Amino acid sequence: MLYNDPKNFRDDMLKGYVAAYPDYVTLVPGGVARATKMPEGKVAVINGGGSGHYPAFCGIVGDGFMDATVVGNVFTSPSTEDVLGVARAVDQGTGIYIVGGNYAGDKMNFNMARDRLRSEGIDCRSFYITDDVASAKPEEREKRRGNVGTFMVFKAAGAAAAAGLGLDELERVTAKANDRTRTVSVGFRGCTLPGEGEPLFHVPKGRMEVGQGIHGEPGVGEDDVRPAAEVAELLVDRVLAEAPDDDSKRIAVILDGLGSTKYEELFVVWGTVRELLEERGYTLVSPLVGEYVTSLDIEGIALAVEFLDDELEGYWLAPCDTASFRRGQGSMARGERRVYARAEEAAESFEAGSDASRGLAGQLVGAFDRVRDAIAAAEDELARIDGVAGDGDHGRGMVKGTEAAASAARRAYDLGAAAGSVLDEAGKAWAAKAGGTSGVLWGAALEAAGSVVGDHADSYDAGTAARAADAAARRMGELGGAHRGDKTMLDALIPFSEELGRQAAAGAGFRDAWSSAASVAREAAEATKDLVPKVGRARPAAERSLGTPDAGAVSMALCMRAALPEE
Amino acid sequence: MLYNDPKNFRDDMLKGYVAAYPDYVTLVPGGVARATKMPEGKVAVINGGGSGHYPAFCGIVGDGFMDATVVGNVFTSPSTEDVLGVARAVDQGTGIYIVGGNYAGDKMNFNMARDRLRSEGIDCRSFYITDDVASAKPEEREKRRGNVGTFMVFKAAGAAAAAGLGLDELERVTAKANDRTRTVSVGFRGCTLPGEGEPLFHVPKGRMEVGQGIHGEPGVGEDDVRPAAEVAELLVDRVLAEAPDDDSKRIAVILDGLGSTKYEELFVVWGTVRELLEERGYTLVSPLVGEYVTSLDIEGIALAVEFLDDELEGYWLAPCDTASFRRGQGSMARGERRVYARAEEAAESFEAGSDASRGLAGQLVGAFDRVRDAIAAAEDELARIDGVAGDGDHGRGMVKGTEAAASAARRAYDLGAAAGSVLDEAGKAWAAKAGGTSGVLWGAALEAAGSVVGDHADSYDAGTAARAADAAARRMGELGGAHRGDKTMLDALIPFSEELGRQAAAGAGFRDAWSSAASVAREAAEATKDLVPKVGRARPAAERSLGTPDAGAVSMALCMRAALPEE
Repeated sequence: MLYNDPKNFRDDMLKGYVAAYPDYVTLVPGGVARATKMPEGKVAVINGGGSGHYPAFCGIVGDGFMDATVVGNVFTSPSTEDVLGVARAVDQGTGIYIVGGNYAGDKMNFNMARDRLRSEGIDCRSFYITDDVASAKPEEREKRRGNVGTFMVFKAAGAAAAAGLGLDELERVTAKANDRTRTVSVGFRGCTLPGEGEPLFHVPKGRMEVGQGIHGEPGVGEDDVRPAAEVAELLVDRVLAEAPDDDSKRIAVILDGLGSTKYEELFVVWGTVRELLEERGYTLVSPLVGEYVTSLDIEGIALAVEFLDDELEGYWLAPCDTASFRRGQGSMARGERRVYARAEEAAESFEAGSDASRGLAGQLVGAFDRVRDAIAAAEDELARIDGVAGDGDHGRGMVKGTEAAASAARRAYDLGAAAGSVLDEAGKAWAAKAGGTSGVLWGAALEAAGSVVGDHADSYDAGTAARAADAAARRMGELGGAHRGDKTMLDALIPFSEELGRQAAAGAGFRDAWSSAASVAREAAEATKDLVPKVGRARPAAERSLGTPDAGAVSMALCMRAALPEE
Repeated sequence: MLYNDPKNFRDDMLKGYVAAYPDYVTLVPGGVARATKMPEGKVAVINGGGSGHYPAFCGIVGDGFMDATVVGNVFTSPSTEDVLGVARAVDQGTGIYIVGGNYAGDKMNFNMARDRLRSEGIDCRSFYITDDVASAKPEEREKRRGNVGTFMVFKAAGAAAAAGLGLDELERVTAKANDRTRTVSVGFRGCTLPGEGEPLFHVPKGRMEVGQGIHGEPGVGEDDVRPAAEVAELLVDRVLAEAPDDDSKRIAVILDGLGSTKYEELFVVWGTVRELLEERGYTLVSPLVGEYVTSLDIEGIALAVEFLDDELEGYWLAPCDTASFRRGQGSMARGERRVYARAEEAAESFEAGSDASRGLAGQLVGAFDRVRDAIAAAEDELARIDGVAGDGDHGRGMVKGTEAAASAARRAYDLGAAAGSVLDEAGKAWAAKAGGTSGVLWGAALEAAGSVVGDHADSYDAGTAARAADAAARRMGELGGAHRGDKTMLDALIPFSEELGRQAAAGAGFRDAWSSAASVAREAAEATKDLVPKVGRARPAAERSLGTPDAGAVSMALCMRAALPEE
């Protein structure tokens, strides 16, 4: 892979992207927005997700499609702050509609931003696309992932907004498009993240993963690689298997290359796909064959079908003009230019706290530094563990989160912040910079702990720590929707919090209590190897992770151990 | 890779391609042509080459760009017959202009077709693009390969023809565009041809090939992989190193992904490329960042620059509307449809020959069958040898050529053909189906041998065979421009022919003479391992092939051995 500092991949990429397409897009905090003015009264439609999928998602910003895209690092959810930055940039008082793929991290960040915007009086709605038929059974459609069909649902939402529909109608159209869109993919070879020495996952030579997700998530199982015509048939069979009852026999189709499967191969497959679809009585409406939603350089293809009705056909064919995709006699981005406001800055001063709280704040700064160093040393191992069942981004996310937290904690302390504010600032920075689910959860947990600790107490002891840990665990559980035993970082944090509480109740000092709790967390993290992630929340074929502990639980235990200074 | 029968990859691909873009392209014999009518009086501009480079070359057929593309199999020149098929389909009596990359096989087939068309009274010209600065020194520019800059030169030629220029003016514009276009690429990982088990070539992990060709040809040498910003600087330095004296400081730019290096990486590199070019005083005119000329799934990028003057800038910006690339308020291929004539069929009957010639013809049919089987058995080994310094397509080309020849020989014999006609038909079929340089040369050589053998002689002996072999070798030398010692198949054929002559002169019988000559050919082929290919004709860094015999010489010797039946 080509990159400079992998940590800055997103920012380097966006800089080059807007330099390549200045007529179409402008940088805004957290992503990109259309360079041309939105029509007055139009709802702003925003999509987003991790990068690594271009043209999705920042490539389809422009007239008739998306108004802005929130962009995370590679395969990593953007942060809540990113979503807020983009939303505030394009807000013109006419409502904001956020559409994303159904991924836990994206959903959480988008929803947190949505709720924040609503609390500020902005009418904001969100929707998550579930087109990947291989990721859950039909009766659990709401658990399915987003896949290449997101392109079709985004198109419907974008065209409907361009046609002047309000938020209620946009919700109806988007839900209908999602209900009528199906995607199935096959994968032949993995991809490598910027800065990583090894591929994120492997598909054995001569085999293919059927139903693979756009980050390489396992699908419904492996099969032998087959000739193109048989792969075509497999894809067609599966996307048509769930045709809606009121099937009009008119469909939008995308045959998509995921990265390393190139155009000529797609054309070979398309020859058969088209024949099969037509044999089965379908009329193909302006089908697309090419790269529309990629997955870095994964070798694989996906077939997405949208079962049209008159309304959806109109939106599918509606003109649009973006950097990567254009329909009709486009405006070539020649509309009037727009200048966006910048996002707000971080706090520049803090209220004075108690001496005890300032003293604790100093210790927290040291703790965040140690946590950052411990995570940096463990990054590769965390990535490896996470790669077994997840997308391998956990090590990277933790490095970014702990770096941001340590640096924000120090900055806040230098500006006079006491303990509660230091935790709060560290949490915000972690969530903003780490991206992904775990970043948001860590950020929210630290903020919750900060509320317990506060800036004004006269003393702190093991009991305070236990109450703070309990608040953090509860907040994580609420926000992430996970419970003990779901194979998440809660499986380390809850035992940690409980042991801290037991030790405090028994009268132990802070150091002994924390040390004992950290040992418990470590054992609990290791024990997650016998757990299976809750299907749907995590990913199908979750049984693959049996025998490997949860990366989030392992890193949680590492952080707790590192937080305590050596004697 | 996804494919059905690798031998039919081109045809399967084209079928799917025209099914995906029926508004833009139509199948014609040998390739695709624009689906819309050409303006009256317009010169027909044709490009072409092997497939595996989409959007190049069949993706840029349409209004304002190419009128048709001749399409070979993957990384393989189309045959002369293919070129003729396409040219005849689009000929409207206003001249035909063929533009290709400077590759020996393409050049030979295009020029043979050009000469045939001229002999029929059609004004046809040809031009070969030499933009790859890493493939030969500045003082040998005419030896350079075509690379990603071909896209720019094609654009200039296509736009100039659309503007109504005649052939003389088209030659001037195209030559100027070529003179002012430079490309440099870097490669990180090889690609795999359809049906092959192993990659065509390897770049060692952590290294990159600087100046790699679009089929993975070696460039100026390896270097350690560097951060994106340094790769950007390397590319910028090299393309600017040969700026023309009358540099207007306005440039067209393409930053091109070769297949597995994806869009986000290109944007990261583009951030630096754009800065560096602007720092050096250049204005970038509608630059392109994406995939324009790919090389299957090679991991790598290329930077192409066209130093503009007013005329070339006009052609660079001129509107066009093709399946893969559109500029301006395109017509969306809504012009009037055109129906193309089909190509002529193979001969359906043959003049009666002498009994001796008919007898020999029957033996030739058996010989072609044995040659076909021997080559099929040796395919992998030939591909491996050819992959050392070449593009690894020799095994595949020989399989296709010998299959076509054997089948055409049998068909001709069944229709009553005598020996000369059987050789002639076999040669035509070989050249038409094998593609590539060696296919054309084998085809022409067999036709030359057929002329010597004839249909009417009363007897045949070792002397006839020696004269036929001599004619074949001479024809190959004339057509390919190679000499003994250049490390080509002539290094097996010439010693074969000489030994046959010696044996015949000494009065040996056919079987002994041929057997001895085949042994000499085998030793001579093996001895080519000590030769270095003539640079420019073959490829730079040709010294890599030292220690490996020439694949063409090896297959030549194999064929000669197999032609003789076992006793």
